[in-house]
Amino acid sequence: MSSYVVGIDLGGTETKIGIIDHDGHIVEKAIIPTQVSKGSNDVIRRIAQKVNELVDEKGMRNDILGIGVGSPGSIDREKGVVIFSPNFQDWKNVPLAEKLEELTGFKAYIENDANAFALGEWAFGKFKGAPNIVALTLGTGVGGGVISRGELITGSKGFGGELGHVIIEPDGPLCGCGSHGCLEALASATSIVRLVIEYRKRYPRSSVFANEEITAKAVFDSAKSGDELAELVVERATRALAVGIAGFVHIFNPNVVIIGGGVSRAGNYLLEKIEKKIKSYVMESFWDTFEIALSELVEDAGIKGAASIVYFRLR
Amino acid sequence: MSSYVVGIDLGGTETKIGIIDHDGHIVEKAIIPTQVSKGSNDVIRRIAQKVNELVDEKGMRNDILGIGVGSPGSIDREKGVVIFSPNFQDWKNVPLAEKLEELTGFKAYIENDANAFALGEWAFGKFKGAPNIVALTLGTGVGGGVISRGELITGSKGFGGELGHVIIEPDGPLCGCGSHGCLEALASATSIVRLVIEYRKRYPRSSVFANEEITAKAVFDSAKSGDELAELVVERATRALAVGIAGFVHIFNPNVVIIGGGVSRAGNYLLEKIEKKIKSYVMESFWDTFEIALSELVEDAGIKGAASIVYFRLR
Repeated sequence: MSSYVVGIDLGGTETKIGIIDHDGHIVEKAIIPTQVSKGSNDVIRRIAQKVNELVDEKGMRNDILGIGVGSPGSIDREKGVVIFSPNFQDWKNVPLAEKLEELTGFKAYIENDANAFALGEWAFGKFKGAPNIVALTLGTGVGGGVISRGELITGSKGFGGELGHVIIEPDGPLCGCGSHGCLEALASATSIVRLVIEYRKRYPRSSVFANEEITAKAVFDSAKSGDELAELVVERATRALAVGIAGFVHIFNPNVVIIGGGVSRAGNYLLEKIEKKIKSYVMESFWDTFEIALSELVEDAGIKGAASIVYFRLR
Repeated sequence: MSSYVVGIDLGGTETKIGIIDHDGHIVEKAIIPTQVSKGSNDVIRRIAQKVNELVDEKGMRNDILGIGVGSPGSIDREKGVVIFSPNFQDWKNVPLAEKLEELTGFKAYIENDANAFALGEWAFGKFKGAPNIVALTLGTGVGGGVISRGELITGSKGFGGELGHVIIEPDGPLCGCGSHGCLEALASATSIVRLVIEYRKRYPRSSVFANEEITAKAVFDSAKSGDELAELVVERATRALAVGIAGFVHIFNPNVVIIGGGVSRAGNYLLEKIEKKIKSYVMESFWDTFEIALSELVEDAGIKGAASIVYFRLR
């Protein structure tokens, strides 16, 4: 019985490939360097080769329903084409699905990686099967994926779900997108670190600067132990998240708002900060309609999200 | 051939009832006082009576596909029940559709009035049939309705699409919902008038105060003729709209954002102000993916929106 799928988490540095069963268990897994500089054909050829290897080693060629790929950038989900992707400079209109199908013999489906994350929660997460899911990934950037009435929000060109570029502070810090005060400019790991560094002169003795490398994790750790600067930046980031999530709740009336990505490792400390603030921004009639939760898929959220695309398309 | 529908625009003061054809032309129309204080049964009985009258006068009993009702408040669209409605105090879980069906013999469908407005644009507007529509009504409040991939965004309890309570200025003016700086608190007709009045001491000679009654229209007229206070408030309202719309564009990647309601009568002056600002807030990759337009249904947007519910449900 065909009931396994291959999930491919296409990343700028490394690509994770896994065989996953219907319950989200990883049967087999491999990580290969993406080596973007070698060009899209070479990248795709090596990924396909690794997929074939994994599948054949396990003798599972007849058990695979298809391949799902979570890819950064703009995706034509119907045609399975990567339109463009910021960290994959030569990838313009690359027919990724078609090429993978040729090279592996399996049907392939593609989604933007943030949408794949949302689908992973829908397929394997704590709120499995919920028809209305807002999913946020707090990492280098802030990614968003929304399932509404059991369908992904994609919009006219497939660009929808860019929750990270909703503006929280119209005169706030500059965002990579050119605008100011986007959720991404306040609550991504990158922004949290950048804001801390900007305050260095005012808080030179902050415990954050004792770290060899300043990471979002280091900032949350310092905040937990009462460091003034770290608390200030965490307050601002979590307020931005509360305001943004309140908006998503009013717009989508979701069953759950799920937070993943590196910053979500700050765990219950992060969650409690957001939950404490959110009621000030959400209308009372919505209070009991939603939960905020941290993703439990963690390390393997990428592969599982990619794999879930297949189950979602064939549901 | 059954190809007409009855549209009912249920309002706090008056209720508009019309028979509408598939192209959105109004064949017959009546307005009755709602008289909320008489209780829901009486209101529904009088509405049904007027529907029967209009239909029978025209001898159209066999030509009616069904009744659509646009109602303020929270609606259970599947069951056709008004859960609660702020200006209809005794309306709690009123089975409006069922009662109308009993009293008229026609199948009845209900939607929240802002969703009905969005459906009216989908059925009869300039962007007829567009699968991704964001609709905003700027009136006493700011209402929102969203069609994504040809489906209304409703969410887990049917509360979705509350675009007016997305927060634009987290420390901005108090909103009726209890939060601060919601789009509604900056860009509704009520808020525009309130902000002008708050500035009265600083701008006592503003031409706005020459009006017997200060309305949003009067504020826009004064702004057009260069009045400093009016310009200040219009700038703030249109900036809020630009920031809010930018967010909706990033979230929904819509074909069009349609603006209706009383404030939209400020016309091209309003539209140009928003269009001029919006590019500062929307990512470049989205620039050519959407239009902003004023509703052309104006006066009859309510009835037409209500009527469109039937065409939408039976599409």
